[in-house]
Amino acid sequence: MSDFLVNRMQLRVRYSETDQMGTFYNSRALEWFECGRTEWIRSAGMSYADMESKGVMLPLVEAHVRYHGRAKYDDLLEVETSAAMNGKARVRFEMKIFHSPAGPPVASGWTEHAIVSTEGRVIRPPEWFMKIFETPLDVDDRGAYQE
Amino acid sequence: MSDFLVNRMQLRVRYSETDQMGTFYNSRALEWFECGRTEWIRSAGMSYADMESKGVMLPLVEAHVRYHGRAKYDDLLEVETSAAMNGKARVRFEMKIFHSPAGPPVASGWTEHAIVSTEGRVIRPPEWFMKIFETPLDVDDRGAYQE
Amino acid sequence: MSDFLVNRMQLRVRYSETDQMGTFYNSRALEWFECGRTEWIRSAGMSYADMESKGVMLPLVEAHVRYHGRAKYDDLLEVETSAAMNGKARVRFEMKIFHSPAGPPVASGWTEHAIVSTEGRVIRPPEWFMKIFETPLDVDDRGAYQE
Amino acid sequence: MSDFLVNRMQLRVRYSETDQMGTFYNSRALEWFECGRTEWIRSAGMSYADMESKGVMLPLVEAHVRYHGRAKYDDLLEVETSAAMNGKARVRFEMKIFHSPAGPPVASGWTEHAIVSTEGRVIRPPEWFMKIFETPLDVDDRGAYQE
Repeated sequence: MSDFLVNRMQLRVRYSETDQMGTFYNSRALEWFECGRTEWIRSAGMSYADMESKGVMLPLVEAHVRYHGRAKYDDLLEVETSAAMNGKARVRFEMKIFHSPAGPPVASGWTEHAIVSTEGRVIRPPEWFMKIFETPLDVDDRGAYQE
Repeated sequence: MSDFLVNRMQLRVRYSETDQMGTFYNSRALEWFECGRTEWIRSAGMSYADMESKGVMLPLVEAHVRYHGRAKYDDLLEVETSAAMNGKARVRFEMKIFHSPAGPPVASGWTEHAIVSTEGRVIRPPEWFMKIFETPLDVDDRGAYQE
Repeated sequence: MSDFLVNRMQLRVRYSETDQMGTFYNSRALEWFECGRTEWIRSAGMSYADMESKGVMLPLVEAHVRYHGRAKYDDLLEVETSAAMNGKARVRFEMKIFHSPAGPPVASGWTEHAIVSTEGRVIRPPEWFMKIFETPLDVDDRGAYQE
Repeated sequence: MSDFLVNRMQLRVRYSETDQMGTFYNSRALEWFECGRTEWIRSAGMSYADMESKGVMLPLVEAHVRYHGRAKYDDLLEVETSAAMNGKARVRFEMKIFHSPAGPPVASGWTEHAIVSTEGRVIRPPEWFMKIFETPLDVDDRGAYQE
């Protein structure tokens, strides 16, 4: 893991994110994953908004989520995010959400993204883009990391 | 009320729309109001998507919601929507949500919308647009209708 | 596939479900999967709300989504859902979302659920529950079905 | 205004909160209002979660929102919240959302809440509750504050 840039950010569970089971509704995990990606990119020296205004978009093509435990309204959570190229045409983010600080796990998973132009065409990522994600993804590490 | 086009549409409360109080989360009312507006415009002979592709957008400028009662997951609700011009520059929609059919009220309210071009500039509404909303809003009726 | 109960339900993309890319935001797929599950259970002769009031809950433990194509505001979509037991302690639902009728695919995936009591304890599913999901899941079929 | 406790908190617009107009979807304002209320109560020395576990809930009975300007993905916003009793049976929160720091306004409004027990019955608010909201609401000030 030591070769990867890892970002940690915090968020609080909103009332709007709970459901009648008294925990967060399942789709919020994907929204929190997005918060993690946003902050990972910022910590890599750029904002995703800038990336889009430079003409590169990262639409989601695949997502996986494991639910580990409950999180109630107002709980403070931590999203830990890492990222790397997966081949030449995809970016993969991996997220772990747990109670902050260092508490029980809430959800974990990964998202894979195509690299497309503003018009939606798949593009060869520009050099500035590659630099951000350049560390090659080590499959063994990935497996170990993910869960 | 007899001069107004009134649309009724149904929807079911989704699990994702509940919160830990066991009823719908408050912001869903605005999302259901939107469902009502969408179907009102369709029943007037056009889709809002068509309207946007013809260059007219209706951004929300003001909204009001009253919460009357609970609605649980999977409850069947009915959204009753009417609409009219409010002056020359605004459109006003009025919505009532109740348990279907003809059950207790859930939420009611209104939304007011500016009339803008795709670039976001306020425009004088084109004639085809006026025809859709042409019945003038009768203030007394409106008060009587709203709650 | 012939041994599985398959439910098909329709929904329209809400404005609230779009994002600034002009397509649906990724987490909506999980919310639409829920709509599919709700209607699958109803078509099996029971409502999920009834199931919860009989003391059985199905919290999500794992989810997978593939994004195949765009869906714009007001597009009519179809959610096709099948379900089966996966071992003795889990239920698995499989969903395909496509433009209705019989149009291009939008998203597909599966969700796996634990079977728990209202207090959140894992339980051996009661007989009435097993009957609903009794057709054993044929792995080859499942693979063929899923994508 | 000087007699009111005012809380300021920040949040970033999430991608999931944008819509195809490229700004935040209208119902998010109510969700951000909730974030403001949560932090106002915390700044008053208690959490809303604690309040609920002490048996007092504040379901929304009425809400009003004015939309003043756009906010894009990743914009940093500030929510300014004040609160007071409105009569003996209701609590009123007032929120202003603007670009941070001290930028153009995004949305403003108020929410009114009943004071109920965990079972949903209207209750006379306990003394500890009154202390939190004890400053009487000055109507002239309120008008001046709200917009």
